[in-house]
Amino acid sequence: MEAAVANGPKKVDDKRNGGVIDGPTNPMVTPLLTDLYQFTMAYAYWKAGKHDERAVFDLYFRKNPFGGEYTIFAGLEDCIRFVAHFNFTEDEIAFVRATLPPSCEDSFFDYLRGLDCSDIEIYSISEGSVVFPKVPLLRVEGPVAVVQLLETPFVNLINYASLVATNAARHRFVAGKSKLLLEFGLRRAQGPDGGISASKYCYMGGFDATSNVAAGRLFGIPLRGTHSHAFVSSFLSPDEILEKSLCSCDGSTVCEDFVSWVQTWLSKLKVVRSGIPNFCAVALALNDLGYKAQGIRLDSGDLAYLSCEARKFFHSIETEFGVPDFGRTSITASNDLNEETLDDLNKQGHEVDAFGIGTHLVTCYAQPALGVVFKLVEINNQPRIKLSEDVSKVSIPCKKRCYRLYGKEGYPLVDIMTGENEPSPKVGERILCRHPFNESKRAYVVPQKVEELLKCYWSGSSDRRREELPPIKEIRDRCIDQLDRMRPDHMRRLNPTPYKVSVSAKLYDFIHFLWLNEAPVGELQ
Amino acid sequence: MEAAVANGPKKVDDKRNGGVIDGPTNPMVTPLLTDLYQFTMAYAYWKAGKHDERAVFDLYFRKNPFGGEYTIFAGLEDCIRFVAHFNFTEDEIAFVRATLPPSCEDSFFDYLRGLDCSDIEIYSISEGSVVFPKVPLLRVEGPVAVVQLLETPFVNLINYASLVATNAARHRFVAGKSKLLLEFGLRRAQGPDGGISASKYCYMGGFDATSNVAAGRLFGIPLRGTHSHAFVSSFLSPDEILEKSLCSCDGSTVCEDFVSWVQTWLSKLKVVRSGIPNFCAVALALNDLGYKAQGIRLDSGDLAYLSCEARKFFHSIETEFGVPDFGRTSITASNDLNEETLDDLNKQGHEVDAFGIGTHLVTCYAQPALGVVFKLVEINNQPRIKLSEDVSKVSIPCKKRCYRLYGKEGYPLVDIMTGENEPSPKVGERILCRHPFNESKRAYVVPQKVEELLKCYWSGSSDRRREELPPIKEIRDRCIDQLDRMRPDHMRRLNPTPYKVSVSAKLYDFIHFLWLNEAPVGELQ
Repeated sequence: MEAAVANGPKKVDDKRNGGVIDGPTNPMVTPLLTDLYQFTMAYAYWKAGKHDERAVFDLYFRKNPFGGEYTIFAGLEDCIRFVAHFNFTEDEIAFVRATLPPSCEDSFFDYLRGLDCSDIEIYSISEGSVVFPKVPLLRVEGPVAVVQLLETPFVNLINYASLVATNAARHRFVAGKSKLLLEFGLRRAQGPDGGISASKYCYMGGFDATSNVAAGRLFGIPLRGTHSHAFVSSFLSPDEILEKSLCSCDGSTVCEDFVSWVQTWLSKLKVVRSGIPNFCAVALALNDLGYKAQGIRLDSGDLAYLSCEARKFFHSIETEFGVPDFGRTSITASNDLNEETLDDLNKQGHEVDAFGIGTHLVTCYAQPALGVVFKLVEINNQPRIKLSEDVSKVSIPCKKRCYRLYGKEGYPLVDIMTGENEPSPKVGERILCRHPFNESKRAYVVPQKVEELLKCYWSGSSDRRREELPPIKEIRDRCIDQLDRMRPDHMRRLNPTPYKVSVSAKLYDFIHFLWLNEAPVGELQ
Repeated sequence: MEAAVANGPKKVDDKRNGGVIDGPTNPMVTPLLTDLYQFTMAYAYWKAGKHDERAVFDLYFRKNPFGGEYTIFAGLEDCIRFVAHFNFTEDEIAFVRATLPPSCEDSFFDYLRGLDCSDIEIYSISEGSVVFPKVPLLRVEGPVAVVQLLETPFVNLINYASLVATNAARHRFVAGKSKLLLEFGLRRAQGPDGGISASKYCYMGGFDATSNVAAGRLFGIPLRGTHSHAFVSSFLSPDEILEKSLCSCDGSTVCEDFVSWVQTWLSKLKVVRSGIPNFCAVALALNDLGYKAQGIRLDSGDLAYLSCEARKFFHSIETEFGVPDFGRTSITASNDLNEETLDDLNKQGHEVDAFGIGTHLVTCYAQPALGVVFKLVEINNQPRIKLSEDVSKVSIPCKKRCYRLYGKEGYPLVDIMTGENEPSPKVGERILCRHPFNESKRAYVVPQKVEELLKCYWSGSSDRRREELPPIKEIRDRCIDQLDRMRPDHMRRLNPTPYKVSVSAKLYDFIHFLWLNEAPVGELQ
C-alpha cells in the first residue's frame, strides 16, 4: 500500500470481473486501524474454535442527522478498497503479538497471517443513495472473526462520509439549484484527511467545487478559489507593480501601462467605501483588452445588503459605460455560512451567485457524529437479536433482504425488510408493511415499482458477479437524482415527515417471538 | 513519502543538528494539501516579482474553545515534518499546471519545482503548552509566496490537534487525576486520520490509553479494550466451548473442566439480573487457578447506580469468600460520556475506575472547530495590520517576541507581546502590560520568572540551532505539568477567569498609530 499517494494507490486485479480495485485512498487505512478488542475477540473466537463460524452483521444507523428525515449513504468504495487489500504485513503481525498477552499461541498469529477477505460477502446499498434509519446499509457475511476485524474500519469509513455528504445535500437544498456551492473547509477540517474526505463527500452530496487541491487531484473535483487578505495587504502601493504592461486577450495589442489605465477607470467610478470600485476599475480595464474578470468575494459584513449594493453598482456600470453583461458579474459570499445563514439570506433577498462554505460544512458543526453501528444478526444460521431497554437500540435479527417500494406518483413510499428466503414484493401486489416495534403501525402497500436495495459489492473468491464501483461523478448524479425524487415533505427543513421503514409480517412475528424468548421476565420485589 | 506507513515515514537527515526529521505521519500531507488560492497568489506574487519578499505571518486563534479560558497547543511536530519534506514532485507540478490558466509561464513552474523551506524560519511555542488567544503559536518568516503555501496545511494540522488535545485535557480535569481515561473514538472519528489524530492528541492532552491499534503502533500509546456485545451473543450456550481445560497460572495444575468450575461458582452467587454474577463466577474460578480477572465494563443504564451496586457485590464476595482485593476489581464505564456526564457522575457519586470516551471526545461535539488563523504581520520590514469593524478580528502587527510572566506564587500572570527589538522583560523589573485594544486595561507586573515563548523550531538552511522535537510522552508530561501550574480560577468549568494577554506600551502605541493611519475616516451622509 506504500505507493498509494505518490504513485496512485496499489491495485488488486480482480480477475472474476476483469476489474481492478485500487487500495484505500488513505494508505493509513490498514487492518490495524481497528479497536484492540477486535483482536482480543478474534483470539477468543479462535481459541474457542469458533473463528470460522459463518456470521452475518448489519451496518446501519438509528437516527437521521441534523434534525432531518434523510441521510446520504457514502463511504462504500473506501470499504471495498479496504477489503480488497485486507491482509497483515509481518510488521503488523509482530505488533499485534507484542500487544496481546504473551500466552497467545504462535498458531493464532499464523492464522492472522493467512487472513484475507476471500470468504467475505458484502451486500450494500449503492453509494450516494438516500437512506433511512434501521435499514442495513451493508450486510457483511463471513467467518465471525474476520467480520469483527472489519467492524471498526467500516464504521469509521462510513460514519463521517455519510454525515458530511448529508450535510452537503442539506446545504444544497437551502441554497437552491442555481447557486454555485464551493467547499472551502480544508483549514477547518478535522486533520488532513478530514479535509480530503470532506471535499470528496461534499462534492458527492451536491457541491460544485472545492478549494482543496489534493482532493481535486485525487478525485477530479473541480477546483475554485479567490485570494486572501494577506495578498492585498502585501502591496503597500501600486508603485510595487513593476511589470505594468498587459497584452490584450487576443494578442493583437499591448497596453503599456495597465496600472494607469486602471486608475483612469477608477477616477470615473463614484467613490464607495469598499473594494468594489477598485475591482470594477480593474475589471473594466481588463474588459478593454478583451478579458473578462471573474467576480468578487464578500467575506464579511452584511452579505445580503452588500451583495445587493454590489449588484446595483455592477448594473449601473453596465448601463453607464455600455459594458454588456457587467451587471451579471459573479458575486461569491463566504464567512461562517451554514444552513441557517443561507436560509436567512434567502429570506432577506440577496444577489449572491456562489457560496464558499467551510467550517460548518466540514466539521458538521450542527451535529458532528452519526451513530453508525454494526450488529450481529445471525451466526451459524441462528438469528441473533440485541436487546435493550431502549427500543430504538434493539437490533433487527436475521439475514435480511431490503426493498424500496414506489407509489403511483413515482415517489418512494416505504422501505421494507424481509427474511432472506421470503418472496420479494411484487409490482401491483398488495403487501403488509409493519413498523418493526410498534404493533399498531401497519399499512398495505401496492407498489408500482420495487427496488432491491442490497446488491453484491464484494463476493470474495466466489463466482458471484459483483457490482462495479462507479466513478464519483456517477455517484454524485445518483445522489442528486434520488434527492429530487423524494416526496417534498420528507425533505423540508422544518418538521419534515418521517419516511416509513418497515418489516414484513413474517419478520415482525419472528422478531417479537425472539425478543420474548431471549428477554428474561423481570421480578418485582 | 511513499513508505510512510508500511515502513515508517521517510526521513530527512538534518545535518546541522545531527538529527533526523521524519516525514508527515499521514503521507497524504503533501504541498498539494492546500487551498487553490495559495497557488493563484503564489503565481501573482511571482508575476509581480514579489515572491521573494520577506514576510512574517503569525498563526494564532481568537477565542478559547468549549467556553473555557485555556487551550492546549498541539500539531507542531506534524508542521515541522511537513516543512522538512516540502517539495513538489513532477506529478504535482503537472497537476498545478493543468489547474492554473494555460497562460501561466513555464518559468513559474520551474520556480515551484525548485521550492523548499530552506529560506523559512519558524519560531513556535512548545507543543503541549497551555496557550491563549491572540498570542502567536507560530511565527513563520520567509519568502512571501512560500509562506502562503504553508498556510493551509499548518492551520489544518494545528486546528484539530489543539482542539482535541484541549478537549481531552478538559475531560481529564473533570474526571480527576486518579481515574483511567481511555479514548474509544476511532469508529466515530471524522475519517481514518481523524481517528489517528484523535488518539494521538487525546493522549497528549492527558488520556491514558486508546483502543486504536494503529495509533498505538505509530505513537507508542498504551492500548486498552474490552469486548463487544456481538462476542457475547455469538455464543448460544456454554456447550459451544469445546476446549474446557485451563492450566493454572503457574503451570503447576490443570483444571480439566473449567466451564463446570465456573458454573459451580455461579450457583454460589446470589442471582442478580445482570452479567455481573457471570463475570464474578469466571473471575473467582480464574482466581482459583492463580489468574486475576481485569474487570467489567458498564455500557448502558444508570452508570452511577450500577457502578455502586457492582462495587458492593465485589466487596461482598471479597468478604464472603475471602478473596483478597476482589472488592477493588476494576469497573470501566462508557456510553456517550462527555464533560457534563462525567461531572454529573461525580455529583451523584460513583465507583467507576476507568472511563471509555468516544464520540464527544474525538468529534469535539461541544465545539467541533477552533478558529486558528494565519495573518501577515510584516513584509519587507513594513508592519501590516488587518483591520476589521469587529475588534476581535484586528490583527496585531509587527514581527514580535512573546513572554510569559510568572508571579510570586509561581502561577503564570500574563503573556506579553513586544516588538522584536524591544528589550525583554526582566525578573524583578516592573513592566507595563497593556490590553492590545482596550486603552483603560493596564497593569504593572514585576515578574518573578520570565519565559520566552517562541523558540526556533525550523531554521531553514541557516546555522541557527533549532529545538529538538521531543517524544510524545515528553510533550504529554509538559502538558500535564503546565495545566497543574495554572491558577485554579482560570481552569474551573463554570465562569473561569480569563488569563491576561497583553502588549508592551511601545507595541500598544504602534498598533494604534498604524490603525488610525490605515483606517479611512468614515463620512456620514
